[in-house]
Amino acid sequence: MVKRSGSSDILHDVVEHNGVLSLAGVVAEDLSQGMEGQARQVFEEIDRLLTANGSDRDHLLSALIFITDMKLKPDMNKAWKAWLKPAHLPTRATIGINDLGPKVLIEVVVTAAVK
Amino acid sequence: MVKRSGSSDILHDVVEHNGVLSLAGVVAEDLSQGMEGQARQVFEEIDRLLTANGSDRDHLLSALIFITDMKLKPDMNKAWKAWLKPAHLPTRATIGINDLGPKVLIEVVVTAAVK
Amino acid sequence: MVKRSGSSDILHDVVEHNGVLSLAGVVAEDLSQGMEGQARQVFEEIDRLLTANGSDRDHLLSALIFITDMKLKPDMNKAWKAWLKPAHLPTRATIGINDLGPKVLIEVVVTAAVK
Repeated sequence: MVKRSGSSDILHDVVEHNGVLSLAGVVAEDLSQGMEGQARQVFEEIDRLLTANGSDRDHLLSALIFITDMKLKPDMNKAWKAWLKPAHLPTRATIGINDLGPKVLIEVVVTAAVK
Repeated sequence: MVKRSGSSDILHDVVEHNGVLSLAGVVAEDLSQGMEGQARQVFEEIDRLLTANGSDRDHLLSALIFITDMKLKPDMNKAWKAWLKPAHLPTRATIGINDLGPKVLIEVVVTAAVK
Repeated sequence: MVKRSGSSDILHDVVEHNGVLSLAGVVAEDLSQGMEGQARQVFEEIDRLLTANGSDRDHLLSALIFITDMKLKPDMNKAWKAWLKPAHLPTRATIGINDLGPKVLIEVVVTAAVK
């Protein structure tokens, strides 16, 4: 069975199937902030989506992190390390790309296991 | 068990495992068309691959959409909204990247549940 | 249950859940090499991670290949075809992106089934 939650006109925020959650790409709400602030907002929103759907940050499986400036990766990592416990880190790839929309410095796509 | 179908010399079009289909990145056949036309072709090909493998567009789980020009995202969204019913929208991330090959404006990678 | 192995301070190399392995993005060790050499190193490291975690290259499900220069895709494909048997090819998407870090020409993210 497929369970969908949190819809906009183009996507669902979370889709569950076979005990795995797929999350839509998450960007920051307040785009006036720099990389560390935007990353922190993204991770808080992922927390919210996970806990609302029977999982949490300790059950992350994989993360694709798209950023528009690789020189800002250390700032992103600061927020990342503050967010996750070492024993529960997911797999991860950080990809430097062209464009995520105006002022968007980071977009994150994760999967997680249902608890 | 892993079930593979539709092969070229470098990939399979569809791989099934545990009731989940993974599709290869799909690009348009007729690359003379603009973003809306290319997107429509991509979505038709995804339809074909899904129905040939025991699924359909109502069972999409996730979509990664790579486009070479974020200014054309509204044109892509027009084809997207015409394609999918709101109740069955997957998760989605749209990433603006450098290069998908000559004239390719969009490449889409989806997963779907078997019906 | 989620099983994690091979950790750095920001990620696990492999996360297993429901019989599926998710691997972190893999880049070459020796970045002085060109595309074919970097790709070969990446594929060898993926081999090592898969066999250490109850899978192998014949059980790959999907591959996302990020490269910084699409003109070098043929060199990557040379290493790819030497690596995988036609009957066991996964799905694949090759995306041309901006930046993977200094001298990194290719980063590959795969999933695989446990044997």
